[in-house]
Amino acid sequence: MTQTHVIDGKEFAALLKTKIADQILNYKQNFTPGLATILVGTNPSSQIYIKNKIKTSHDLGIKSYHLDLPATISEIALLAEIKILNEDSNIDGILVQMPLPDHIDANRIINAIDPQKDVDGFHPINAAALYMNQKGLYPCTPTACIYLLKQTLSSLRGLKTLVIGRSMIVGKPLSLMLLHEDATITIAHSQTIDLKTLCLEADIIVAAIGRPHFLRGSWIKPGAVIIDVGINRSLDPDSKKIMGDVCFEEALGRASAITPVPGGVGPMTIAFLMYNTLKAACLRRGYEVPDMF
Amino acid sequence: MTQTHVIDGKEFAALLKTKIADQILNYKQNFTPGLATILVGTNPSSQIYIKNKIKTSHDLGIKSYHLDLPATISEIALLAEIKILNEDSNIDGILVQMPLPDHIDANRIINAIDPQKDVDGFHPINAAALYMNQKGLYPCTPTACIYLLKQTLSSLRGLKTLVIGRSMIVGKPLSLMLLHEDATITIAHSQTIDLKTLCLEADIIVAAIGRPHFLRGSWIKPGAVIIDVGINRSLDPDSKKIMGDVCFEEALGRASAITPVPGGVGPMTIAFLMYNTLKAACLRRGYEVPDMF
Repeated sequence: MTQTHVIDGKEFAALLKTKIADQILNYKQNFTPGLATILVGTNPSSQIYIKNKIKTSHDLGIKSYHLDLPATISEIALLAEIKILNEDSNIDGILVQMPLPDHIDANRIINAIDPQKDVDGFHPINAAALYMNQKGLYPCTPTACIYLLKQTLSSLRGLKTLVIGRSMIVGKPLSLMLLHEDATITIAHSQTIDLKTLCLEADIIVAAIGRPHFLRGSWIKPGAVIIDVGINRSLDPDSKKIMGDVCFEEALGRASAITPVPGGVGPMTIAFLMYNTLKAACLRRGYEVPDMF
Repeated sequence: MTQTHVIDGKEFAALLKTKIADQILNYKQNFTPGLATILVGTNPSSQIYIKNKIKTSHDLGIKSYHLDLPATISEIALLAEIKILNEDSNIDGILVQMPLPDHIDANRIINAIDPQKDVDGFHPINAAALYMNQKGLYPCTPTACIYLLKQTLSSLRGLKTLVIGRSMIVGKPLSLMLLHEDATITIAHSQTIDLKTLCLEADIIVAAIGRPHFLRGSWIKPGAVIIDVGINRSLDPDSKKIMGDVCFEEALGRASAITPVPGGVGPMTIAFLMYNTLKAACLRRGYEVPDMF
């Protein structure tokens, strides 16, 4: 029976946010980073995410600009709003909350954001930078996963790392970032045969599946480190509980360390959004980017 | 003892080149694709590669333009040559033979090529397209590997595929292309621990290591398919033999299929350079791209 360390994402996020706030204070005489958030429509989850992002911006000393736009807005009108923000020198980061209404092409919106202000790291220029292991703005969730892994393990070199999921938001960028950390990576997905065996061989598992409690305790190699990226509603429609992709209770006693849901990767993701805003501000304005790693 | 099928890259390349030549003939009334090659300096291997590319262009009906530049050319002068080719409407593809002399920044040269004419598929715009599984010009060697695998196996879905090597020319783009074919992929490299075990678990191994006969027969799961991307000089300085990364003789009787070196991936790579030139010509000139898959 292994003693499982529960990786406290809230605590790491609090530490990181304190460091970011300190750096923003440091640069106060020179500039204040500005983050623009855009919400289209009234999706309740999106409203909560945006509210958190705005509140965290305020807490850290980032100037927040918010646009609340109706679900009926045309793509052209939304592109015009982005153009204004691209040209506004006070704005360092632009975040368009996803998902967008069906009549708007999300790719066209992402491509319209100035890559230097693309704090979500979704623009092709930033995607190419990540793929080629060059400087750029990297997406927040995979960055959060790497950060938590590096806080838990001294080095990822050579470790057998299984990423379950191949989305452009988590699985693919994270796999490449792990590769650049010298991990040996495997990418599994819905078409993978015998996932359980792959899991049992892995020193590290990152679950980005999107199915509540999909990964069972018996799939975990004793001593493995588990990062749970899942944010799922309970299958019980009466429950408001948020569940991870990993059966947390079963993982206890097998994994050497695991991130809980909630309180694991989630709080780190928003902290890295703030970090990306500070980073974008420093790069745009010609100041040194503070290192948080 | 498995009967090992030797995948005849020469034959597949001949078939593919015939198809490309037919399509070029088809479009003759409308346009003739043009490929510009640039050789800087007098590296003997590079001279052979370029000579092959020019000859194959001629054979297929592609108009070839060649620039032979001295090793002493400045980066600025080379960039000026590329600018002229970018603006020349007769040129559909621009290929700068690597490696370049040390005083020239290869990335700066690649980035200067019009992405629509980037038949090597190395420009960040094309790299991003591949990473995001969108349309673009994809690098030739990984495309050749995918082609040979799809000719050998009906589907790659779910198959455990090990890519050894993580370069931007082969390992990384190939891993993503395999992922987009629904394979379960593992990327191994110099820092990987216990490569032999990983090899023995794989249904498909692609070796892009750069070390002659590195992968031994005993590392191959009986029935696995082996793609050997290696092009190495023999360790014996007197031998002019080209050797693959895989110990071919040992693989016979274990693998279900294997590409030989020479005569495997190599001839396919040049065929796909011709295909990329035709593709670039069609895209630039507004004609349908013939499907070769």
